[in-house]
Amino acid sequence: MKQDFFNLEINTNGQKLYEITDQTINWIEKKKFKEGILNLSILHTSASLIIQENADTDVLKDLINYFDKLVPMDNKLYAHTTEGKDDMPAHIKSALTNNQLTLSFKNKKLMLGTWQGLYLFEHRLEKHSRTLTHHIIGD
Amino acid sequence: MKQDFFNLEINTNGQKLYEITDQTINWIEKKKFKEGILNLSILHTSASLIIQENADTDVLKDLINYFDKLVPMDNKLYAHTTEGKDDMPAHIKSALTNNQLTLSFKNKKLMLGTWQGLYLFEHRLEKHSRTLTHHIIGD
Amino acid sequence: MKQDFFNLEINTNGQKLYEITDQTINWIEKKKFKEGILNLSILHTSASLIIQENADTDVLKDLINYFDKLVPMDNKLYAHTTEGKDDMPAHIKSALTNNQLTLSFKNKKLMLGTWQGLYLFEHRLEKHSRTLTHHIIGD
Repeated sequence: MKQDFFNLEINTNGQKLYEITDQTINWIEKKKFKEGILNLSILHTSASLIIQENADTDVLKDLINYFDKLVPMDNKLYAHTTEGKDDMPAHIKSALTNNQLTLSFKNKKLMLGTWQGLYLFEHRLEKHSRTLTHHIIGD
Repeated sequence: MKQDFFNLEINTNGQKLYEITDQTINWIEKKKFKEGILNLSILHTSASLIIQENADTDVLKDLINYFDKLVPMDNKLYAHTTEGKDDMPAHIKSALTNNQLTLSFKNKKLMLGTWQGLYLFEHRLEKHSRTLTHHIIGD
Repeated sequence: MKQDFFNLEINTNGQKLYEITDQTINWIEKKKFKEGILNLSILHTSASLIIQENADTDVLKDLINYFDKLVPMDNKLYAHTTEGKDDMPAHIKSALTNNQLTLSFKNKKLMLGTWQGLYLFEHRLEKHSRTLTHHIIGD
């Protein structure tokens, strides 16, 4: 059993779901691991990691719209307003989704469903640089 | 340290929480592992995995009702409507809960609280066949 | 590759986010592990584990307020009312956040972002004793 680490830097440009499935799979394939656990973490609390449908892009748009209605960008609702109207809603959206995902892989393949993709869910409006850590334990 | 895998197929019949605790525990007990990590994933994005109270079944009913109010089945609210009025809400409910759970076990026992159970949370209205992958790393 | 376990007991006194980052880091540092996975679980379904911003305490207050509005403490809304007006909302808040977190550590350091802290998010109003299990697999 051995371990390996890899940091993926993603430059985001506003609220969107950025698919990372291929970059993650490519990294696993390059390594000598056959089966194990891949632990993914995002080192920020105003963006998330989620698994979602990769078929109809309307799903991704609906997700953004839904979360925007659920967590309004309205400074009157929050005490933490110094970083902009989108910052506290971004922290809440992060709490409602995930900062980390733990995935299994077998025969060098990530165990995802046919319609599942891995996404960085950016909740801020401006440009940001996001660090995603990848960590494998396996054989 | 070694690894093992197991797929559990669950046939669901509408919105409900389907308890899988016993099936998961039975699989661990059959294996020679003493302690380790169990990574559970659901290979779908319109159903979830959650840990919830296993004592009062009203808790499970309240959860379904709450999520139905929070994420209405109303096609006018969404762009993705081709798969039925329950599909986009199911994707959102999945994003609000979890597609994977990582559990520890020790002395062949899953480390769950007295009142904790493992559930597949089905968000679709019709019958579905759901695949849950189980993956152990441990001794 | 080896394993170790540790239970952290936290006495909570009402709705609040209780930071556990230092206690978790201290435990890892005392052990001989250099790199691996730390699996954290809370053995309850009316309190959560979340990663959140550790800089401005207003973020934590806003989170509590937001979740209270999203999941009202109103017995008329729920069937499960026998354990108090805060119990069913606590189960729902737990479902909307997380009961477990899986973190990576490298060079004896937990891989957290500069502004990330680990919190027990207590959703009940009265005093409770909460058990958090820590489990390491690593070298």
